[in-house]
Amino acid sequence: MSNIFGKNFCISTFGESHGDGLGVVIDGCPAGLKIDAAFIQKELDRRKPGQSKLTTSRKEADEVQILSGIFNETTLGSPIALIFRNKDARSKAYSKLKTLFRPSHADFTYQARYGVRDWRGGGRASNRETVARVAAGAVAKKLIYELCQIETLAWVEQVGKIEAQIDPDKVSLKKIEANLIRCPDKKKAALMEEEIKQIKKEGDSIGGRIGFRINNLGAGVGAPVFKKLSTDIGQALLSIGACRSFEIGAGATASFMKGSQHNDAIGLKNQTPKTQSNKAGGIVGGISNGEMIYGKVVFKPTATISKKQETLDKNFKPIIFKAQGRHDPCVLPRAVPIVEAMLNLVIADQLMSYALADIHRLKKVF
Amino acid sequence: MSNIFGKNFCISTFGESHGDGLGVVIDGCPAGLKIDAAFIQKELDRRKPGQSKLTTSRKEADEVQILSGIFNETTLGSPIALIFRNKDARSKAYSKLKTLFRPSHADFTYQARYGVRDWRGGGRASNRETVARVAAGAVAKKLIYELCQIETLAWVEQVGKIEAQIDPDKVSLKKIEANLIRCPDKKKAALMEEEIKQIKKEGDSIGGRIGFRINNLGAGVGAPVFKKLSTDIGQALLSIGACRSFEIGAGATASFMKGSQHNDAIGLKNQTPKTQSNKAGGIVGGISNGEMIYGKVVFKPTATISKKQETLDKNFKPIIFKAQGRHDPCVLPRAVPIVEAMLNLVIADQLMSYALADIHRLKKVF
Amino acid sequence: MSNIFGKNFCISTFGESHGDGLGVVIDGCPAGLKIDAAFIQKELDRRKPGQSKLTTSRKEADEVQILSGIFNETTLGSPIALIFRNKDARSKAYSKLKTLFRPSHADFTYQARYGVRDWRGGGRASNRETVARVAAGAVAKKLIYELCQIETLAWVEQVGKIEAQIDPDKVSLKKIEANLIRCPDKKKAALMEEEIKQIKKEGDSIGGRIGFRINNLGAGVGAPVFKKLSTDIGQALLSIGACRSFEIGAGATASFMKGSQHNDAIGLKNQTPKTQSNKAGGIVGGISNGEMIYGKVVFKPTATISKKQETLDKNFKPIIFKAQGRHDPCVLPRAVPIVEAMLNLVIADQLMSYALADIHRLKKVF
Amino acid sequence: MSNIFGKNFCISTFGESHGDGLGVVIDGCPAGLKIDAAFIQKELDRRKPGQSKLTTSRKEADEVQILSGIFNETTLGSPIALIFRNKDARSKAYSKLKTLFRPSHADFTYQARYGVRDWRGGGRASNRETVARVAAGAVAKKLIYELCQIETLAWVEQVGKIEAQIDPDKVSLKKIEANLIRCPDKKKAALMEEEIKQIKKEGDSIGGRIGFRINNLGAGVGAPVFKKLSTDIGQALLSIGACRSFEIGAGATASFMKGSQHNDAIGLKNQTPKTQSNKAGGIVGGISNGEMIYGKVVFKPTATISKKQETLDKNFKPIIFKAQGRHDPCVLPRAVPIVEAMLNLVIADQLMSYALADIHRLKKVF
Repeated sequence: MSNIFGKNFCISTFGESHGDGLGVVIDGCPAGLKIDAAFIQKELDRRKPGQSKLTTSRKEADEVQILSGIFNETTLGSPIALIFRNKDARSKAYSKLKTLFRPSHADFTYQARYGVRDWRGGGRASNRETVARVAAGAVAKKLIYELCQIETLAWVEQVGKIEAQIDPDKVSLKKIEANLIRCPDKKKAALMEEEIKQIKKEGDSIGGRIGFRINNLGAGVGAPVFKKLSTDIGQALLSIGACRSFEIGAGATASFMKGSQHNDAIGLKNQTPKTQSNKAGGIVGGISNGEMIYGKVVFKPTATISKKQETLDKNFKPIIFKAQGRHDPCVLPRAVPIVEAMLNLVIADQLMSYALADIHRLKKVF
Repeated sequence: MSNIFGKNFCISTFGESHGDGLGVVIDGCPAGLKIDAAFIQKELDRRKPGQSKLTTSRKEADEVQILSGIFNETTLGSPIALIFRNKDARSKAYSKLKTLFRPSHADFTYQARYGVRDWRGGGRASNRETVARVAAGAVAKKLIYELCQIETLAWVEQVGKIEAQIDPDKVSLKKIEANLIRCPDKKKAALMEEEIKQIKKEGDSIGGRIGFRINNLGAGVGAPVFKKLSTDIGQALLSIGACRSFEIGAGATASFMKGSQHNDAIGLKNQTPKTQSNKAGGIVGGISNGEMIYGKVVFKPTATISKKQETLDKNFKPIIFKAQGRHDPCVLPRAVPIVEAMLNLVIADQLMSYALADIHRLKKVF
Repeated sequence: MSNIFGKNFCISTFGESHGDGLGVVIDGCPAGLKIDAAFIQKELDRRKPGQSKLTTSRKEADEVQILSGIFNETTLGSPIALIFRNKDARSKAYSKLKTLFRPSHADFTYQARYGVRDWRGGGRASNRETVARVAAGAVAKKLIYELCQIETLAWVEQVGKIEAQIDPDKVSLKKIEANLIRCPDKKKAALMEEEIKQIKKEGDSIGGRIGFRINNLGAGVGAPVFKKLSTDIGQALLSIGACRSFEIGAGATASFMKGSQHNDAIGLKNQTPKTQSNKAGGIVGGISNGEMIYGKVVFKPTATISKKQETLDKNFKPIIFKAQGRHDPCVLPRAVPIVEAMLNLVIADQLMSYALADIHRLKKVF
Repeated sequence: MSNIFGKNFCISTFGESHGDGLGVVIDGCPAGLKIDAAFIQKELDRRKPGQSKLTTSRKEADEVQILSGIFNETTLGSPIALIFRNKDARSKAYSKLKTLFRPSHADFTYQARYGVRDWRGGGRASNRETVARVAAGAVAKKLIYELCQIETLAWVEQVGKIEAQIDPDKVSLKKIEANLIRCPDKKKAALMEEEIKQIKKEGDSIGGRIGFRINNLGAGVGAPVFKKLSTDIGQALLSIGACRSFEIGAGATASFMKGSQHNDAIGLKNQTPKTQSNKAGGIVGGISNGEMIYGKVVFKPTATISKKQETLDKNFKPIIFKAQGRHDPCVLPRAVPIVEAMLNLVIADQLMSYALADIHRLKKVF
């Protein structure tokens, strides 16, 4: 069940890169939520390929079809099935991949695991799988906003050696969407754009870092021990294909700190408890404390490059491989909506699972 | 169900720091495994408090009692229940905590979440909870070794500003256990020891970093999309109380790399596929490729410090708080067996869940 | 997640009776299984409406489309998505149902549960939902046969007051499929057919009973306590819409028996342990003992009848209701492949979950 | 994970009949519930052995120890661990069982499944396992009553050929507990008592039937498709060791009915929708409709009898076996609190899982 995510707001995804289609079934979305295809499509359009010169030239409309669960633009409480047909799948460009294992692609590991594989464009291992995440994430986004005005945001803050200093408190969707990179620092964004163009020219690819935040979650969401809110967020983001590292709050810098530096003193603001700093990233003991949640994730460079590489063919004979086909020189800009989608899914699941599971709250309802 | 971990090798933990006891129930351990209390105790002794001047002075034998599931030193296939009685619980030292929220402790968030809390030594939020993880991890350790000779190791590689350069390939249990810090670089270990003593004298605490590796896993273990092996390892380690960041393989440094630098060319060694480098950390597309798995995790400094801190009492009135009671100035040395335990649990669960779930392998069995 | 079934061979179903489509995603089917659309279609054709005068006149081809997970007629190990478009959905015939609650239909309970409902033909509560079960069950059928030659069978043994005495040992697929009723006793089948025609003429409906068996399971499949094989089978069959009762082995007649009558003495046959009777129905302590598994389930009469009934409109005003639209006077014949599908799914899940989870077996594999 | 039950109110049980102890961990009980050991003990005392001449002579106080999760007689929201030490375990009486397979006991199937077994008194397969169910059920009982005044009841209505006609509407706990049989019809109870004494004298055992009901559940609890309320109840009760059949509402009699007889017309009572009959047993489409829920379960006769039986020894050599050791001639009276416990657990899980999962209700809370 490695294609199922979430416990109470639960998604089940499917689809290969060059098969007939991809999709997702959402089980556990409450009834009565107002949502339509246009809302979902808007998020999908942020992820879709072919947006600009910086991304792969594969053209996919990624047009969502709602098969079930929504009637009169209202959720029914039954499973919401969303599907996408593959259209611009040029499988022939991949036919030679049938006979070799591409370096740092999942060709070899899928073969080892399954004894068979769909060699067309990476099959299930393709980043194309994330179209389902973004569609489901759009429903989650609507849900958590309608319930509690919770909002998630992600942005690019590093591409290779070009790094922007971003204060999570001051980011806005507008600033993020103002450039192709989705970096709220427009000067650095311009440099990143140049860098990516240069990398593309070289037939190479480049890694980078994405920052994220969650606002308005309120205190008391999450759980102890194995299902800490920070753990769930980490799991969700680390499940994105190229993600190599995850930090929450002060993150890795906490390794250099003393307790007297890292601890967040608690004060009052408008008669409400408020920490005077936020090293914790809004989560203590696995449960939200009402402060902004923030962190960051690193994405490795795309494995597909046009340079020559050593590898093996399917008979374990060494060969030289040079990739063709279309790919993103840098996944970061398109990863932004994917990161947001995963955050939305985590929060939706938490709200459906834990937020109400206390008798002192339940009493108010029954 | 935030206290349950694993799907097929599944553990259910319980217990508060100063309650009557703690424990764990393992459901899904195969029958026929040879194991006794002494084997489990050995791992527990590596974690237990009061080992040296560097750790908390709380004395707990953490003596394991096997209630079920093991008969004649052999697992029965039924649930294995392991319990621990609390003995040196000086709850009175904590009685004043009843009336305030300690900074960066889970006092406030538990109150927000549950409306009630066990204020004695952090209750369920205490690091003491990990005794159950280590006990269950010992069973997992025996299982994965017996099945496939898989071994996991963790070590300290940074304490505050003192950082050791450790090559995961060259670490051994002997080198790790050779000093109190559990750092395989004995010179750096000595410096770290000095640093921790100094920090303790200051009434402060300090963070750091732990490295880990997994050997002999073989190729083909793991799964795509949401249950990638890397994701499962990340989730497992991020669920440890003070963990703030997780990296796999090249980790955060991948953000600076080009694809041509990060890709692992595939070659042959003894007629077997072998990557020429291992930036991936042994996992591609969520599935092991047969190389060594490695990564690192950062732990924040202990929240309990003896210095004065601003916070609120239970009526939200600002007060100055100065902690008493016993605590670790640095959790890193005792966190080493906890990290290993979580790795063992992840691998045991993977082996029970996915390793055999392929018809081309099943065919050999039925 | 009430639309998800199974733990390791896991299906996620979706779709409303008169929405755009229905379907199922199978996560956990091993790679390497040979299967194509025609095999699945064959099972679907046994369930589909409009087969004869005895069933609803709604015409649905129920043509399966494979969206993912199967490539070159071989399973990939990735999720298998199967969808069905609704074609003969005459929603207008149901438009008056918008304003009232049909007796013994889920109209009122869905409204109470969700606050909104799809009134077109019962929405998600329609028996049409079972098309997804039968499709997934076909894949499970192929899997369990390929792995261990396990076969499941179901048949009608009672319609209203007409009851056939069927010995589960002597049933065959050929005898079952020899008549429209799917009752292996052809004389009783003829009487049942007359009965159903008469009931249809009266504008009424009728209940009945289905028997089932599982062959070649072998000893040692299942689990103790909450996931007994008998429990899993019971849960699976009781989840079919109209199912009202479930019995395993001697079933309800065990209530009249003494231990000396019910116990199955153990003997030898061809040097292999074999019980001399089979009151247990092949399952002891939740685990198969190698004998044939058998039992029975009762289905209530269809709720839709053409007779006048008292009920309430949506404003809770009493009204007289007389159903129009198409329906089955007796669900039993079409329920036969649904019962088989659920049995196949249970066994597939058990094989993927428990059959190999023992070290003395695992040893042979690794 | 066959020893784990429930999804959000989740219990994990453990323990062998003659091991050191048994117990249960409850994960997901909301914080703030007032409960103490005495309340739990009261339910346990109804189940415990040695209550009368009608039950096994094994004496076990079954005294509950609370290890965690309850502080100041209030649940903390953390896991509640309850344990029981075995005291009157006369394993020697079972030592000869080491070498043979008792008929209709799980000796052979456990051996087939696990390759090893605890032969002392049935090990994990013993009915003694239900002590954990009853303890957890007591917590669930308190929870569902405090939340919504929901009450469950079970009673004996048949022992062998002696059958009482019980109207579920008119049963009371007082009437049930008025005699050793727990049959609310005191005349029939006296006959049943005589029957059991006679059976005991014969060295035999006897089966029977238990009825149950659930009151005050309200409309709108449950879920469609695979997690129907009726399905969950069926699964829960069928998981009790000796249970052979389950019926809900009109149950098996529905097989003889026409739709016009089985349908429940809907009317008004005190301006609230109310069905004029209750053939459905309070559940339609898997969701409660506000009427009383009722059904019945059949238990087979105890497998342990003092009569001679044919079976095999561990080397598959035929032998004659005559059981010694202590056992119940009829499990029915002691099964009553077990049935109630499972019903309480199902309802608690449903309330924690589904009752609030709708936006039109959630809106009131957030």
